[in-house]
Amino acid sequence: MTPPYRLHYAPDNASLVIRLALEARGLPYETALVDRAARQQDGAAYRALNPGGLIPVLETPDGPIFETAAILLWLADRHGGLAPAPDAPARAAFLKWLFFVSNTLHADLRMLFYPGQYVGPDHASALRDRLTARLRGHLALLERAVAAPDWPGGASEFYLACLLRWMALYPEGFDRGWFTLPGYPALAALCARAEATGAAAAAIRAEGLGATPFTAPHPATPPEGSAT
Amino acid sequence: MTPPYRLHYAPDNASLVIRLALEARGLPYETALVDRAARQQDGAAYRALNPGGLIPVLETPDGPIFETAAILLWLADRHGGLAPAPDAPARAAFLKWLFFVSNTLHADLRMLFYPGQYVGPDHASALRDRLTARLRGHLALLERAVAAPDWPGGASEFYLACLLRWMALYPEGFDRGWFTLPGYPALAALCARAEATGAAAAAIRAEGLGATPFTAPHPATPPEGSAT
Repeated sequence: MTPPYRLHYAPDNASLVIRLALEARGLPYETALVDRAARQQDGAAYRALNPGGLIPVLETPDGPIFETAAILLWLADRHGGLAPAPDAPARAAFLKWLFFVSNTLHADLRMLFYPGQYVGPDHASALRDRLTARLRGHLALLERAVAAPDWPGGASEFYLACLLRWMALYPEGFDRGWFTLPGYPALAALCARAEATGAAAAAIRAEGLGATPFTAPHPATPPEGSAT
Repeated sequence: MTPPYRLHYAPDNASLVIRLALEARGLPYETALVDRAARQQDGAAYRALNPGGLIPVLETPDGPIFETAAILLWLADRHGGLAPAPDAPARAAFLKWLFFVSNTLHADLRMLFYPGQYVGPDHASALRDRLTARLRGHLALLERAVAAPDWPGGASEFYLACLLRWMALYPEGFDRGWFTLPGYPALAALCARAEATGAAAAAIRAEGLGATPFTAPHPATPPEGSAT
């Protein structure tokens, strides 16, 4: 029987967040490698699934879903166990931080990685300086939120752990001294929690992430495909 | 009896999206003006509700919620009628476009309005040039999505209508010729739909938006507070 879900992924891309959620919930899925080196995400077949061309896409019986956080939330509501239920008191906190992570932390991080989508080469350094200052501010807010007694947990933790991984690793050739995980004890503890899951073990094997993908990350050495 | 909801708002700010949703669903709420001219959103009282200082916040029995799209989705799931239910087939499409609007369209638009949060004055013009090109791309995707038979509708339409309004109005002193609503027939029809609702009529009165806030917007002349 074909699994109901097909995850279009590239190693160590945002699809990793979805792989972790699928594994954590024990949901059967198959994967389809997006060949980034060949820019397959810009081809007509992929654009038919996600017109924006971003990775991941999850094919479902209700059609293809894109946007990492949308897929997370959809899986959570369809299968339970990944987020507070819609009628749970913790739902409010879950949603506000999920959107913050998606539209502020992740959005700013994407600009840090790909400044050329926003400014020319002469301006990239100025943009990155402001972005690292902004990102430090976002991390300070998240550190407090994750340390608070009403932190809702759930699959947002996988999303955050992946973003913290990429902050430590990328962009290559850029001074990444602006960020060190031990400066954020609650976020470091979150990374340790995520890393101790069976879902992380499965993702480590599938995408070549090394033994400590969140607490002390190294660039991926994936069995297929490429991260960039 | 005190209404269960208290919307912290400034006229013609992102809080407008939430006002429209509350009105559309007939939910009782009270408002608390955030005095932007006095930068009240940076004060300790407001930061206790939203540490990021952005408008809106909705106070609820489950605590304060920030992030426009998070509030929309929470209201939708708590009260129904604003989005496809979690188990409805159209939920997937609703979520993917809601996140896209939040983390891509709205995020880029915020940069267009406040480039100083990202680059110095020497670089603002270069940033805005790239942003308008990006925004045209996002609008082309949304035009196709909204025109498609599987467009899920729901409260995202209020969110989109407000963003299209602000694109036409802001930033002041900037050449806004890059965007004209009639170039996007499905989005123009969406604006007309939103404008024809009783919710829009209520928002027009409350925030001084004029008779055609979405199809032919003019700057707000609010009875209290200021938009910027």
